[in-house]
Amino acid sequence: MNTARQGATQMTKICRFTVDEYIDALTEFHGNFGPGLLIGGFMVDAAARRMTEYEYLDAICESTSCLPDAIQLLTPCTVGNGWLKIVDTGRFALTLYDKKSGNGIRVSMDVSKLDGYPEIRNWFMRLVSKHEQDNDALLEEIRRAGREIFAIQTVTVSPALLGKHTPPPIALCASCGEAYPQNGSTVCPACQGMDIYV
Amino acid sequence: MNTARQGATQMTKICRFTVDEYIDALTEFHGNFGPGLLIGGFMVDAAARRMTEYEYLDAICESTSCLPDAIQLLTPCTVGNGWLKIVDTGRFALTLYDKKSGNGIRVSMDVSKLDGYPEIRNWFMRLVSKHEQDNDALLEEIRRAGREIFAIQTVTVSPALLGKHTPPPIALCASCGEAYPQNGSTVCPACQGMDIYV
Repeated sequence: MNTARQGATQMTKICRFTVDEYIDALTEFHGNFGPGLLIGGFMVDAAARRMTEYEYLDAICESTSCLPDAIQLLTPCTVGNGWLKIVDTGRFALTLYDKKSGNGIRVSMDVSKLDGYPEIRNWFMRLVSKHEQDNDALLEEIRRAGREIFAIQTVTVSPALLGKHTPPPIALCASCGEAYPQNGSTVCPACQGMDIYV
Repeated sequence: MNTARQGATQMTKICRFTVDEYIDALTEFHGNFGPGLLIGGFMVDAAARRMTEYEYLDAICESTSCLPDAIQLLTPCTVGNGWLKIVDTGRFALTLYDKKSGNGIRVSMDVSKLDGYPEIRNWFMRLVSKHEQDNDALLEEIRRAGREIFAIQTVTVSPALLGKHTPPPIALCASCGEAYPQNGSTVCPACQGMDIYV
């Protein structure tokens, strides 16, 4: 229980928001609110605090679920502006990094730190069903935990993910007739056999 | 010029916003504003108007650039809540569809309708550089065009993209030690050789 008692240093802010304001704002954007979003808020906050000397930050999100929306609400990085890249490793982790150098901070869940947080452990490791989970106790535990359950590392993002690529010329697909970025084929990726529409 | 004159039926609303409100809201979310976002707004609006009988809509976005943010602002579908799926075909198109049946409306740019819209054509087909483009004239033309430049089709989304999948159990990666959804390997996708960090 010692770890849980570090709630004495409980975090009251998530970037520019109080925790409650954050929950309200994200509920509006995301449609509902859950544990992954609250942890995600603390993760973004933990990374952002260590990246204040940089002017232009990009983000990598290693999870497709919840975490991207915490990043999109709290930083200027969105999927549509390209500053947030989703690189699906399945790990619950995110990185904020300097757009130019690739130097950044990666924040991930550290399972070895979950001993004092049984609700978080049960939820995160999928040891209980959604139905069995006490959601209020879980959210309360996440508030107490703040960034105590994270691993925080300095990283350098791979050059393959950095930089602006010159957009290729536009071609018209020989099959569907729609415009697509030229890619060495005469048909667009969809007409090369993606299973999207019946 | 006849097509352009259909500006007499100029669209003044994009879903719940006036066009100007939409530009302001999206500028705040996306960090800046551009032609793809304005076209994207009209596209979402065109699809949403035809899908009013359905209660739960999901979205597919076929482009990674701009369009996802129009969808995230105007609909309840976000990347993080999973209701918006990005299926990168390179085509400038989106689909709103009934979560259950997959029945939906796909809206795409129709290049054959761009004859009366030289600025849009030059921008969309990348025939002029960003530097040469008259941005004000382009945005004005997009406002005039509204949904006149779209192809609008009824579609049925492939069963592969429908439905909820039961989340797999969580394992700890034998290499990095982080938690990831079990996938038949003892190491997470990142440790299987993704090029993310140096």
